[in-house]
Amino acid sequence: MMVIMNVDATKEQIEAVITRVEANKFRVIVNTGEDRTLIAVIGSNPSVLREQIMYMPGVDHTVPISRPYKVASREFIPENTVFPLDGFVIGGDEVVVIAGPCAVESRSQLLETAQAVKEAGAQALRGGAFKPRSSPYSFQGLGEEGLEILAEARELTGLPVFTEVMAPEMVPLVAKYADVLQIGARNMQNFALLHAAGECEKPILLKRGISALIEELLMAAEYILSHGNRRVILCERGVRTFETATRNTTDINAIPVLKNLTHLPVILDPSHSTGHADLVTPVARAGVAAGADGLIIEVHPNPKEALSDGGQSLSPEKFAVLVKQVRGIAREVGRK
Amino acid sequence: MMVIMNVDATKEQIEAVITRVEANKFRVIVNTGEDRTLIAVIGSNPSVLREQIMYMPGVDHTVPISRPYKVASREFIPENTVFPLDGFVIGGDEVVVIAGPCAVESRSQLLETAQAVKEAGAQALRGGAFKPRSSPYSFQGLGEEGLEILAEARELTGLPVFTEVMAPEMVPLVAKYADVLQIGARNMQNFALLHAAGECEKPILLKRGISALIEELLMAAEYILSHGNRRVILCERGVRTFETATRNTTDINAIPVLKNLTHLPVILDPSHSTGHADLVTPVARAGVAAGADGLIIEVHPNPKEALSDGGQSLSPEKFAVLVKQVRGIAREVGRK
Amino acid sequence: MMVIMNVDATKEQIEAVITRVEANKFRVIVNTGEDRTLIAVIGSNPSVLREQIMYMPGVDHTVPISRPYKVASREFIPENTVFPLDGFVIGGDEVVVIAGPCAVESRSQLLETAQAVKEAGAQALRGGAFKPRSSPYSFQGLGEEGLEILAEARELTGLPVFTEVMAPEMVPLVAKYADVLQIGARNMQNFALLHAAGECEKPILLKRGISALIEELLMAAEYILSHGNRRVILCERGVRTFETATRNTTDINAIPVLKNLTHLPVILDPSHSTGHADLVTPVARAGVAAGADGLIIEVHPNPKEALSDGGQSLSPEKFAVLVKQVRGIAREVGRK
Amino acid sequence: MMVIMNVDATKEQIEAVITRVEANKFRVIVNTGEDRTLIAVIGSNPSVLREQIMYMPGVDHTVPISRPYKVASREFIPENTVFPLDGFVIGGDEVVVIAGPCAVESRSQLLETAQAVKEAGAQALRGGAFKPRSSPYSFQGLGEEGLEILAEARELTGLPVFTEVMAPEMVPLVAKYADVLQIGARNMQNFALLHAAGECEKPILLKRGISALIEELLMAAEYILSHGNRRVILCERGVRTFETATRNTTDINAIPVLKNLTHLPVILDPSHSTGHADLVTPVARAGVAAGADGLIIEVHPNPKEALSDGGQSLSPEKFAVLVKQVRGIAREVGRK
Repeated sequence: MMVIMNVDATKEQIEAVITRVEANKFRVIVNTGEDRTLIAVIGSNPSVLREQIMYMPGVDHTVPISRPYKVASREFIPENTVFPLDGFVIGGDEVVVIAGPCAVESRSQLLETAQAVKEAGAQALRGGAFKPRSSPYSFQGLGEEGLEILAEARELTGLPVFTEVMAPEMVPLVAKYADVLQIGARNMQNFALLHAAGECEKPILLKRGISALIEELLMAAEYILSHGNRRVILCERGVRTFETATRNTTDINAIPVLKNLTHLPVILDPSHSTGHADLVTPVARAGVAAGADGLIIEVHPNPKEALSDGGQSLSPEKFAVLVKQVRGIAREVGRK
Repeated sequence: MMVIMNVDATKEQIEAVITRVEANKFRVIVNTGEDRTLIAVIGSNPSVLREQIMYMPGVDHTVPISRPYKVASREFIPENTVFPLDGFVIGGDEVVVIAGPCAVESRSQLLETAQAVKEAGAQALRGGAFKPRSSPYSFQGLGEEGLEILAEARELTGLPVFTEVMAPEMVPLVAKYADVLQIGARNMQNFALLHAAGECEKPILLKRGISALIEELLMAAEYILSHGNRRVILCERGVRTFETATRNTTDINAIPVLKNLTHLPVILDPSHSTGHADLVTPVARAGVAAGADGLIIEVHPNPKEALSDGGQSLSPEKFAVLVKQVRGIAREVGRK
Repeated sequence: MMVIMNVDATKEQIEAVITRVEANKFRVIVNTGEDRTLIAVIGSNPSVLREQIMYMPGVDHTVPISRPYKVASREFIPENTVFPLDGFVIGGDEVVVIAGPCAVESRSQLLETAQAVKEAGAQALRGGAFKPRSSPYSFQGLGEEGLEILAEARELTGLPVFTEVMAPEMVPLVAKYADVLQIGARNMQNFALLHAAGECEKPILLKRGISALIEELLMAAEYILSHGNRRVILCERGVRTFETATRNTTDINAIPVLKNLTHLPVILDPSHSTGHADLVTPVARAGVAAGADGLIIEVHPNPKEALSDGGQSLSPEKFAVLVKQVRGIAREVGRK
Repeated sequence: MMVIMNVDATKEQIEAVITRVEANKFRVIVNTGEDRTLIAVIGSNPSVLREQIMYMPGVDHTVPISRPYKVASREFIPENTVFPLDGFVIGGDEVVVIAGPCAVESRSQLLETAQAVKEAGAQALRGGAFKPRSSPYSFQGLGEEGLEILAEARELTGLPVFTEVMAPEMVPLVAKYADVLQIGARNMQNFALLHAAGECEKPILLKRGISALIEELLMAAEYILSHGNRRVILCERGVRTFETATRNTTDINAIPVLKNLTHLPVILDPSHSTGHADLVTPVARAGVAAGADGLIIEVHPNPKEALSDGGQSLSPEKFAVLVKQVRGIAREVGRK
């Protein structure tokens, strides 16, 4: 159930509603909007409670919410979630482009790439210091050394840094270096990690699991939101289907579906969603045309020598073309 | 194997190559390009044959082709297949918009819709007279009466007509009325129908099966092409995945993959690929941004009263907005 | 809606109900069961009609049916559909094993295989004379010559023959030679073919489409049933998923789901559902353990030389082991 | 590369090979088999190294291994991994049945169920104290209190306890109470958790991710094995497909595929792989018929009142029938 208070409801009236709900052993989440306050009552509430609340002073009306996520829903927070990062704003008019290598491989590789993507128009830097790899025998990332290199690249370029965190106990370490913490597709339902991310002070980039329903992505976001962290960015990165011509299938439908269902920013990762450098640019354009708030792109100074995911990385030259083209599309759909 | 003749190879030299191949019991398909002639030799040819051919007069070089489709491949026909329909050209610079109702329900419904989509900027009319329906008890279309209404709408508006054919023996009847014959997703591997379409004089719109691999779509096209009909348009219309928030999953990757692999025109059907009117416009924009040569869109004068697929049909007003937006995107990607 | 007549309802009372329904422009399908008559009223019937019928003489009660298929449903025909073929009964206590090569390649190959599978315990012979092939350049079957060879094998062995039909106009020809006509996975929603099969006097083996929902399979069966042919056998043959270790994914759940929903016999094709000879026997055992009424198995005298699907064909020796093992499992689940 | 030593190779010869490999900066894993020693060399080794090793004293021969998993492969350990738990042996002749509620809800619920499943023939008890739930607002399990109740049930019944662990830092706590630690489908690629499980002294039950390839399951097992824990049980629990009639699709093919590729025990969870109590028993029979080493089944004393997954839980009475039927199937396939 959601309780929509009157525009001029008093603080006491709001408190009284919360007290009544909690006396019935239900939990509330409160959205103090600009106009009025909304109160979400968690769980499958009995209609008798709804009838009690409906006639309390200051209550405009109540509506049942059937969706299993609350704080993530547009019903609860109608306005877009917009927040600033160093030098740009995500979730607003601007289409944000985040770029960098799959993995931090060395100081020189990262600094070179950071400089190149900045010149090509990227607004933020990505790069993995801790890498989730299917095989225990593959390169697992440089670890804290990689985080230090990322921080150095930020000093050099001014670009804020996005990087992955893989375990709850690593959240404080990664948060010390990164501007945005990324939770990868394989960990989308690692609930202990989501919980830790919810208690972190840095924004979270949450990638959709390889076979996650859109609803499950929103419920994973709800884990983070309900533990207090309201700065969550959602990322479509392709789903696993029967098709073998591409590494994954970009679920382009998910972009407008998510923009309808949630107020959170939504970005697309066409590098992983296609798996082929040739396809990244047309699919990046498609993502922005469909309404994405941003893109995250793998760029490597020398794709053929990349230690991971080289086949889907763009060279800095091709990335510059991509940025130019998506800026054109962005203007056409009323974005900056 | 593909045999690439010299630019100045004589007719006799070309004939000699064909004779030699056929003497070895292999079949050839010949592409007389602007510059030079290419000869595809069908089947898994022995290397000894390739060595024989390689040194014949007029032969520039030979290459093995691993792809199971030949005539459909860009290796065999490098230039885009471009052909005119009444009033426009498909496969060229122009992004073509085909629109109309899912099913022809009545004369007034169709004529009204045809007029409306023309005014909104559509270049062709779609409408089903024979409808493939999962249930034997659902409305199966008006049949030949529907074809007559479509022909009347063409008279009235000048728009060429796209309509579905469901069985080989119906091909001549439908071809009598339609400008382009559509083969639906459920019939993509109805080989008897593909064969009949290959012998038809009208262009064919071939829709991807709901779980067809991109390669299977190209091999279905090859059935039509190898029986003599070279005017085939491919259509991505969404694939079936685990996601339940949308009717199908638009495989946007398929657009640039197909444009790389084949010279045939590729269009997108965002009405079926999403299944929700709200999603049609953003996904149509995405299709054009990704490189589609056209769109096919369901429009109904009164979507709520449609006898089939009403939930995914646009009103004429919303369709006019779509056309305007996709024209903007088209310019941005260097199309008309 | 379904109308359940009294056990002692008279013929006149039954006629009166049918007349009333038809006067309201609804179609009926009648099941004259052993005990009593059931009348299915097709379409979304208004409740006012249901109220009229409910109180007519001879009517026991009425129930709404929500399922989109009627004649195929256990609600309409509670007892198993059981029918004899030459030498055995399908749908009853016996687990039926049908075996033979993917394609009829030659007279000697087929006669040898027919003899071998008979000796190993098969009760029927399979073999394709018309082959649906993804590529137009692959072996398409021997056609009518193949049908003649199949008929000869029947003479020799006494085994009834199962073979595929691919187009509506071929139904009479194939029915002249075959005991059971098979509709393949790619044609499961070829509605013109289903219609023709519904008017045929021979039983139909209907294979599930590669991504068909269980409900769609039942609706495809309904097309055949509603055109008058009540002898339909359903076949699970694997569905297409993301898994690449096997050709298809055997949907073993579908066996008990179908046995719950429909009275029609259900068999499993583990050759296609796995795609590897090594997996056929364990999955065949699983099918019978899950409740399948039979199996259809590819056997080739020399799997390595098969013109199609050799990798999934069993040798006659391995097939004999399979038959022995599945007979043991069959006894264990209360079958013969 | 795998190095197969002679049957009579000396300890010194084995050491010399290991020293040579490590001098070349490759890692080894050693399998001291009954007959002879096998040495796996991790990574893509240069052929020059293989040639050096090939002629060293005591080396029988070397083979390249292409599979990305080593210790999990039957190539490296040909004999089945068999190990005892309290009162039974897993991976051997016996088909093991593990049963209990989805979640530990209360002391009385668990003790009652434990007693009931023991009487019905279960050899081990399952029950979740920590529950991974899609929604942050759902019941998350009793936590350590649940573990204590499980330990009490073991005292009472003698059944060893299987229970889930969700985060690396919880491994020691859960290992204190449980006999086997379960890693759930959502955590199959939680590499930090796999690492911690690899250092734990208790056996691990590893469930396949909802869209994990069979190869990815084996590589997840390899993470555990390569960190030192050799007692891993694999569990097929259904994959996510387009089919909506069942909660998941049981990949029955995976059972014989896994038994071919790996020496590890393989069990089936038909409760999750079907999602409907009606389907659990037939699919459990199918699993054993296909070669599974065991089953894990949800049983609840009162399925309708279960706090989670009630619809797929069996009553103790139905579970007793299941045990009886699968024992019959087990005998038929040569198991106990």
